[in-house]
Amino acid sequence: MTAPVAVTMGEPAGIGPDLILALYARRKALSLPPFVVYGHANFLKARAKRLGLDVAIATAGPDAAAETFAQALPVAHIEGMVADLPGVADERAAPVVINAISEAVHAAMTGHCRAVVTAPIHKGALYHAGFKHPGHTEFLADLCAMGGRPPLPIMMLAHEDLRAVPLTIHVPIKDVPGLINRKLILDTLRVMTHDLRQRFHLERPRIAVAGLNPHAGEGGSIGREDVEIIAPAIADAQADGIAAVGPLPADTLFHPPHWRQYDAVLAMYHDQALIPIKTVAFDAGVNVTLGLPIVRTSPDHGTAFDLAGTGKASVSSFAAALAMAHIMTAPKA
Amino acid sequence: MTAPVAVTMGEPAGIGPDLILALYARRKALSLPPFVVYGHANFLKARAKRLGLDVAIATAGPDAAAETFAQALPVAHIEGMVADLPGVADERAAPVVINAISEAVHAAMTGHCRAVVTAPIHKGALYHAGFKHPGHTEFLADLCAMGGRPPLPIMMLAHEDLRAVPLTIHVPIKDVPGLINRKLILDTLRVMTHDLRQRFHLERPRIAVAGLNPHAGEGGSIGREDVEIIAPAIADAQADGIAAVGPLPADTLFHPPHWRQYDAVLAMYHDQALIPIKTVAFDAGVNVTLGLPIVRTSPDHGTAFDLAGTGKASVSSFAAALAMAHIMTAPKA
Repeated sequence: MTAPVAVTMGEPAGIGPDLILALYARRKALSLPPFVVYGHANFLKARAKRLGLDVAIATAGPDAAAETFAQALPVAHIEGMVADLPGVADERAAPVVINAISEAVHAAMTGHCRAVVTAPIHKGALYHAGFKHPGHTEFLADLCAMGGRPPLPIMMLAHEDLRAVPLTIHVPIKDVPGLINRKLILDTLRVMTHDLRQRFHLERPRIAVAGLNPHAGEGGSIGREDVEIIAPAIADAQADGIAAVGPLPADTLFHPPHWRQYDAVLAMYHDQALIPIKTVAFDAGVNVTLGLPIVRTSPDHGTAFDLAGTGKASVSSFAAALAMAHIMTAPKA
Repeated sequence: MTAPVAVTMGEPAGIGPDLILALYARRKALSLPPFVVYGHANFLKARAKRLGLDVAIATAGPDAAAETFAQALPVAHIEGMVADLPGVADERAAPVVINAISEAVHAAMTGHCRAVVTAPIHKGALYHAGFKHPGHTEFLADLCAMGGRPPLPIMMLAHEDLRAVPLTIHVPIKDVPGLINRKLILDTLRVMTHDLRQRFHLERPRIAVAGLNPHAGEGGSIGREDVEIIAPAIADAQADGIAAVGPLPADTLFHPPHWRQYDAVLAMYHDQALIPIKTVAFDAGVNVTLGLPIVRTSPDHGTAFDLAGTGKASVSSFAAALAMAHIMTAPKA
């Protein structure tokens, strides 16, 4: 597959555009695959100038991108008004931000792009312009549904071979036990198994399921959820042919010799998955959305308004997201 | 201070005695400080023989230990019945296990030993013999109280300069939010500050306090505890002269460049503290009990009945516990 990776511009007041331009400038040193940016061409030129980056920009759609890429950054231009105002969210730019995402998804759904890498957005600026989704990922899931029933998008954090999925994400800890149920665990294990097989060519992905409570509940003496909900869900998954094991104590699971026995970990809540990833791979982790008909990755950081326009933001995670999108859409070796 | 470190024998069916003997055999290679074992001399001889370890054992109290240590492992002998039965908990040994702990604590309280390092116990075997404490640490706190009000013992996990205290420990996740309160956080920060100053010679220990919820609650939008309980407790502590900061998002806190800005981390629950420690230092972490009038450390593992008598258990954590006890009682450089 020679189609380029689609990269969305993201929030213009944030570091997304800076990193895209910096990545293009360092494309050879970082061995990056060809990509096409969905965004506003003149805005990107202005930001490049501000950053002092010698980046030629060419308006080009995905089909011309591979050819263009060696000489200039191909930009699939989205019409609209985008000012170069680092750190200042400007809701007038919202239509471009939103259309960039929908056009990139459309290009991936129709095979003109191999995958979508999204730069961070600032939801606050989009809500004023009528954006109705709880987050970036839900918007993508909706676009992928093309009017039908949206798929179950699942966030996976990945760094090299360490892959972790939090079953629950941005919810208070007090709500976590009530949100954990047998069906959600089974559905998540099914999506993980399907996508690890399809995207990572793992024939029978081995998934470690972390317990909710300390020591995975010590047989029920420290909380009942591990024996009453998580263990039965794992049994359901095993009966379905899924190579899941657990619940395993979360504290010892992320020691490298332990997690290396598995292809992925299903954690029960945000910090249980993110602490180990960020401890070992602070700025090189990648956010991968499973469960979609297309491959979507993103850097594991936000808009960082305070760094926008300064050239000081690290490209590591965005570079890793691009590389991961490329690998996940490469033919089986 | 030239007094030896007191080491309790722990559960005879577990790996504690094996590790103590192995550590003595490797005392030079591991640069271990002189120590005296509180336990049963003939049992230790039998276990050494079983393990094929050429360890001479001499009955000697703490005052003779430093002198004895070069030639033989000094054992402050505790009378009783202890059989060499690896993997088989035998409640007849309980009085020796219990008395070893109380005599070691007494030796430390009276200055004959500089610190206590405890080998793991098996509570099940002790309850039958009338042991009434919820755990090892509470028993030590009680012994240190010498009839008075027991101190607030606080568990700290340490590996080199990474030190983490879980505010709540072996409780279900669903109970954690209800157990977090302003007084407990303040009391814990006071004990941490006092002990880090006294035992680690840190003039004004900087303590990072982790938030409970994802992203430390994002200003109250993901759970209220971070703004309503943890932030006010930190303000109380700061007003009290304590260098505490937070609540900080737990996921990014344990990346080395972040935690290195602090002398210790106060986490809200078990896995939040133990995941990062065990991810980076699986078998070399040390359990340090703060808040006691004596220094007490222990290896960060259990009795591991399946490994007892095999010689396969790793000495890393026990060796680190001995070294830590020595450092914590060394005079200020």
